[in-house]
Amino acid sequence: MWRDRRILDLFGIEHPLILAPMAGSGGPALAVEVARAGGLASLPCALLTPGTVAREVETVRHEAAGPVNLNFFCHRLPDPDDPRAGAWARRIGERYGVPPSPPEGPSRLPFDEAACALVEAVRPEVASFHFGLPEPALLERVKVTGARVIASATTVEEAVWLAERGVDAVIAQGAEAGGHRGMFLDEAVASQIGTLSLVPLVADAVPVPVIAAGGIADGRGMAAALMLGASAVQVGTAFLRSPEALTGAVHRKALALAGAGDTAITNVLTGRPARGILTRFVHEMGPMNPEAAPFPLAAAAIAGLRRAHEDRGSADFSPAWAGQSFPLARDEPAGETAARIVAEARALLGV
Amino acid sequence: MWRDRRILDLFGIEHPLILAPMAGSGGPALAVEVARAGGLASLPCALLTPGTVAREVETVRHEAAGPVNLNFFCHRLPDPDDPRAGAWARRIGERYGVPPSPPEGPSRLPFDEAACALVEAVRPEVASFHFGLPEPALLERVKVTGARVIASATTVEEAVWLAERGVDAVIAQGAEAGGHRGMFLDEAVASQIGTLSLVPLVADAVPVPVIAAGGIADGRGMAAALMLGASAVQVGTAFLRSPEALTGAVHRKALALAGAGDTAITNVLTGRPARGILTRFVHEMGPMNPEAAPFPLAAAAIAGLRRAHEDRGSADFSPAWAGQSFPLARDEPAGETAARIVAEARALLGV
Repeated sequence: MWRDRRILDLFGIEHPLILAPMAGSGGPALAVEVARAGGLASLPCALLTPGTVAREVETVRHEAAGPVNLNFFCHRLPDPDDPRAGAWARRIGERYGVPPSPPEGPSRLPFDEAACALVEAVRPEVASFHFGLPEPALLERVKVTGARVIASATTVEEAVWLAERGVDAVIAQGAEAGGHRGMFLDEAVASQIGTLSLVPLVADAVPVPVIAAGGIADGRGMAAALMLGASAVQVGTAFLRSPEALTGAVHRKALALAGAGDTAITNVLTGRPARGILTRFVHEMGPMNPEAAPFPLAAAAIAGLRRAHEDRGSADFSPAWAGQSFPLARDEPAGETAARIVAEARALLGV
Repeated sequence: MWRDRRILDLFGIEHPLILAPMAGSGGPALAVEVARAGGLASLPCALLTPGTVAREVETVRHEAAGPVNLNFFCHRLPDPDDPRAGAWARRIGERYGVPPSPPEGPSRLPFDEAACALVEAVRPEVASFHFGLPEPALLERVKVTGARVIASATTVEEAVWLAERGVDAVIAQGAEAGGHRGMFLDEAVASQIGTLSLVPLVADAVPVPVIAAGGIADGRGMAAALMLGASAVQVGTAFLRSPEALTGAVHRKALALAGAGDTAITNVLTGRPARGILTRFVHEMGPMNPEAAPFPLAAAAIAGLRRAHEDRGSADFSPAWAGQSFPLARDEPAGETAARIVAEARALLGV
């Protein structure tokens, strides 16, 4: 069986496979399937109210044994009067001939008092964070609940920063990964590091176990990541097309139609760098644009366009998050995907 | 021993380790050490005259048994009157207060009649190509010599294109790789694919064996690449600091001083995208700049600045090529590096 048991013992799971928490595409049905396959069930919370999260945790615990991981964003909210927000909205409005959307309130909330109270109430076995960590007092309250704390690093410096603040494991998020880059000390998208380089560098730099993320969508990727020194893998894109995922229709269509290399890291969809399919808006305004409104306000600037185009079946203005291994994702029940990845990796590793 | 013998049998080598041909840093002494360790000796030819290459091949064959790989570039020469060349040189001259260098003749020549005659004369066991393939008549002459032909792909589309033209193996060059990107059908640097994603996608798409390149600098990387479906690995950056490499003093200093994530793909040093340490000129004019003179003329535009700064021990205007795993490179004899990588990989794989 698995040679490195550090993450297995830390979380109490059977296989070193963690469902990536994908805001907008993940959800309780997907989490249940991965938990039943022996992996870690993760729920993305950044877009949900505490009440919704509590109900989802209840569903997962009712349907499957095993631990639950709640994932939160730790960004700072932008100044609502930030001039870039209005300027960006006007530019979008002029270019695409629509009335400028007024800057809306942020749809993605950082981990705050309410989220911390939720963690204290539902007591997830694992709490994971993206874009850094909660402020120290809140982080301490999370730890007091007994939750294992993990967080994403995209550089060695970020990994060391997280380890110094007491995380139980570091997620080394390579540049192949879909969705938002976890980067929080660094803004240099052009220097983001591929998984094959990042995992060994992080494993050498921190005393805690490393979870590899980015580009892992089958057993070959899982086996490779364990060879690199990871104690477990985090897999998201491989599940995007499963019936249990909440991936929207235009997102699924974009995944099915894109050419093998058609992703890029873009900030024009939300204001922070995130990897997705190169849709029309990303082509025309990005992929990286220094004038994009700060996260998450850039999402509000295209909300109307997005709705209008999605109603016509088009992903032109939608985020279609995808890692670089998205061509390996299948229309397949999530439980089968998880079991297949584990079985393939075990066969390759001879364990 | 190694489970997949396709590349071993194709080239007649003991271990699936190919020395990356690094123009400017490779050379016969490095090739000899890798050959003696059981890998494939590669000589970068793009910066050398045929006479020099012939002498280097003689040296390698005298010092070590085993096959030799000659590597060539297959770019198209730019129009010497291309207005971008003069405009770029003037811009550099104004910004840095130096007289604009007149556009010089290209220092890097594509594979041509003279190079083909060299191959016919020295009959290397392997010929490898970057930036595509030679024109069909020349490629046919190379094949008639009995040389195995390999070439770099940075996308699935490029890999399929190469396989359709009869290469014996495809080098899947992931985005982590140091030096010039082999890209030739695609110009979208932002969409270049990490090794962990690229190798399985290419292995699924072509019938020939795949050589993984990019981010492989120790046995962990080698073992991981073989798990991904590669039949061999190509390693360059791990050897950059060895005493046998021709890596210049300022390049070595840049490698020793840079932070772990301080590389980017830049076109301002030569005109084509290549990964290196983020030196001053790359910071100030790049990393990617749409106005850079076409390859290889951008190198001429900074030749004077480069010489002047190198004379003072500064890499500010020098290419300091490096893959993203450069922190794993050691000041270590190349033969020890090669043997160590192989031994580490075998231990991890249990072969």
